[in-house]
Amino acid sequence: MKLIGIMMLLFASLCYAQEQGDFKPATTNVLDAQYPRVDSASRVQIRIKAPDATKVKVNFWSNPKLDMEKQADGFWTVTTPPLAPGLHYYTINIDGVEVSDPGSHSFYGGSKDASAVEVPEAGVTYYLPQDVPHGQVREVWYHSSVTGSWRHALVYLPPNYDTQTKVRYPVLYLQHGGGEDETGWIKQGHANFIIDNLIASKSSKPMIIVMASGYARRPDYKAPDITGNPMGSPAGMRFMQEMMATFEDDVTKILIPFIDSTFRTIPDRDHRAMAGLSMGGMQTFQVTFNHLDLFSYIGGFSGAGGMMMRGEQKLDLKTAFNGALADPTAFAKRVHLLWIGVGTEEPPQMRAGIQRLNAALVEAKVKHEFYESPGTSHEWQTWRRDLKDFAPRLFQ
Amino acid sequence: MKLIGIMMLLFASLCYAQEQGDFKPATTNVLDAQYPRVDSASRVQIRIKAPDATKVKVNFWSNPKLDMEKQADGFWTVTTPPLAPGLHYYTINIDGVEVSDPGSHSFYGGSKDASAVEVPEAGVTYYLPQDVPHGQVREVWYHSSVTGSWRHALVYLPPNYDTQTKVRYPVLYLQHGGGEDETGWIKQGHANFIIDNLIASKSSKPMIIVMASGYARRPDYKAPDITGNPMGSPAGMRFMQEMMATFEDDVTKILIPFIDSTFRTIPDRDHRAMAGLSMGGMQTFQVTFNHLDLFSYIGGFSGAGGMMMRGEQKLDLKTAFNGALADPTAFAKRVHLLWIGVGTEEPPQMRAGIQRLNAALVEAKVKHEFYESPGTSHEWQTWRRDLKDFAPRLFQ
Repeated sequence: MKLIGIMMLLFASLCYAQEQGDFKPATTNVLDAQYPRVDSASRVQIRIKAPDATKVKVNFWSNPKLDMEKQADGFWTVTTPPLAPGLHYYTINIDGVEVSDPGSHSFYGGSKDASAVEVPEAGVTYYLPQDVPHGQVREVWYHSSVTGSWRHALVYLPPNYDTQTKVRYPVLYLQHGGGEDETGWIKQGHANFIIDNLIASKSSKPMIIVMASGYARRPDYKAPDITGNPMGSPAGMRFMQEMMATFEDDVTKILIPFIDSTFRTIPDRDHRAMAGLSMGGMQTFQVTFNHLDLFSYIGGFSGAGGMMMRGEQKLDLKTAFNGALADPTAFAKRVHLLWIGVGTEEPPQMRAGIQRLNAALVEAKVKHEFYESPGTSHEWQTWRRDLKDFAPRLFQ
Repeated sequence: MKLIGIMMLLFASLCYAQEQGDFKPATTNVLDAQYPRVDSASRVQIRIKAPDATKVKVNFWSNPKLDMEKQADGFWTVTTPPLAPGLHYYTINIDGVEVSDPGSHSFYGGSKDASAVEVPEAGVTYYLPQDVPHGQVREVWYHSSVTGSWRHALVYLPPNYDTQTKVRYPVLYLQHGGGEDETGWIKQGHANFIIDNLIASKSSKPMIIVMASGYARRPDYKAPDITGNPMGSPAGMRFMQEMMATFEDDVTKILIPFIDSTFRTIPDRDHRAMAGLSMGGMQTFQVTFNHLDLFSYIGGFSGAGGMMMRGEQKLDLKTAFNGALADPTAFAKRVHLLWIGVGTEEPPQMRAGIQRLNAALVEAKVKHEFYESPGTSHEWQTWRRDLKDFAPRLFQ
């Protein structure tokens, strides 16, 4: 009896330890918020006060929705199963209303300021601030005659930009995804810390990174009333095409000249790259393939040319992208890097589209790099890894 | 009958026009969100979908709460009375849960990412982007041995900072309020546009503006569990005092040397100013009055020294602020500008505290400026006006 009693106690305390875990407030929380919190098993606990609600769910966008449980004190709580490492957007659904968690800082995604929780990746520091020289991120505003408006962009300048006043730098244009904005690569992606660390270890050349808004409309353009996925309707497709064409004009006619006249760039195609994630990947392919006179490094992160949306079974490189890839030898001479990537856990249709592009490139012997991020979905950990693999290949 | 019929129709259409107003989506909305919207009479319409909720209220922080009305389509709506011009924080209360409005961008205030709506001020452009040379706002990170952590700050650099590489500039340290953070003066306040416009009209000297986080804790410090106003309990007061002292150390020992070694400043007290709003005003008084060797321009926006919290009926300048103001003649020689301001509609206790300080300064013949923002409360329109009045008096 005594032994069994001790064993039960031990068992109970083990269960307790496992249930309790070693939860700590997430680094993405607002000051002093105790929830959400994360443990070393990558589980996340959410807690929100809603004493009068009848049903509360948490919706991690890359995971199934979870019902939260009402506690006696009017708080609702839930502990998730282990999540993939990285930044996870989520919203809380209170009696049918999708809201942000006041304990979390907000991150622009899904066309709103959404909550997100950072799940650390054990032993991984490449996207964290380290004791290395730090570049600076600048907010700039430029007036675009293409859109007839003031436009906001973020610009990363490498360490020593200010002190080495004769040095000029190559430029990477780096685009966010649909529903996100120009703040995403810094706030969600930590692109500045990734490049700081790559430069410090001499893995990457020092470079300027320009992060612009991917949304662009001509002054007289009236957006149609579209709900849901714009790719889902002809009006939505026209809207996307119009936006992409306007963005292409803004980047090539306004933004690049503005950047080249504002910063100490090396203003030629050999020292200019473009990459983007998801919608930004599609935009990258459109802008660069139509302007190979301006770009010579191309990256598509979880989004490559939009063909995955169009239901093609096989990609015909002779005609795709206005024929830019029709002559692989000429393309390889002209383009220093064509890089595509996707997470192994991305939705099947998305992954299949990029695999299809990869297969077509392989078959046509178009020189390129293909990277698959293990265990991650259509989410920021994939794109952080993409940038870590992509950036060292630039301007070498 | 006919005439009455026509008159009734006219009356009905007039009512309709007034009810309809000329509402437009707020400039603070996320892309394409149609609500909240604002009309030319400064009324705001809020709309949120909550089909299963039983009570929904909107809470504009500087105004009484308003009940929202359920519509047949499951949306709840309300139109506010005319609001003061400027940026208004608000939250929506759905069945007792205080949430952000997904239609609004979020702004860090009240210790969370809150919603806010910009109500334009007719004919007023000083805080809007104009066709003038624009400075840039930089994000910088510095490691502080005072707090043992990486700290984030924003730094405004005036137009031509990059091209006129021999020019050095004076510096204004500009602090946010309690519950806000270092992004407030740019996102909520538009300090960059205010200074751009003042510099363009030659009303202000070109200057660097440093916006740092007002929260600082030593590495080993454990924050007590305080709910509500920290000034309300002895533990809360000690917490605030400890934070203020740590902040004072961080600014004077780490931040100023970092800024002076990173940017082309004029690193002396004659070219260094500090100002802040609310809690930032209290911090400004503490830091500058304790370090007159470092600062010679001082601004307190809706917060001056904290004495309004301590219930003193009259301020004794002989002993207040460690006696820094005890000798008005010496003070006037040493300090080029002491500036205090408050909105006429601020809560009575807050306004009374600053008026009390003003009265004490007048009585003691301490040279200073006192500005009252007409019709505005403890809110950003007051502080935008404060900066517009304060900045031209610097470094002249």
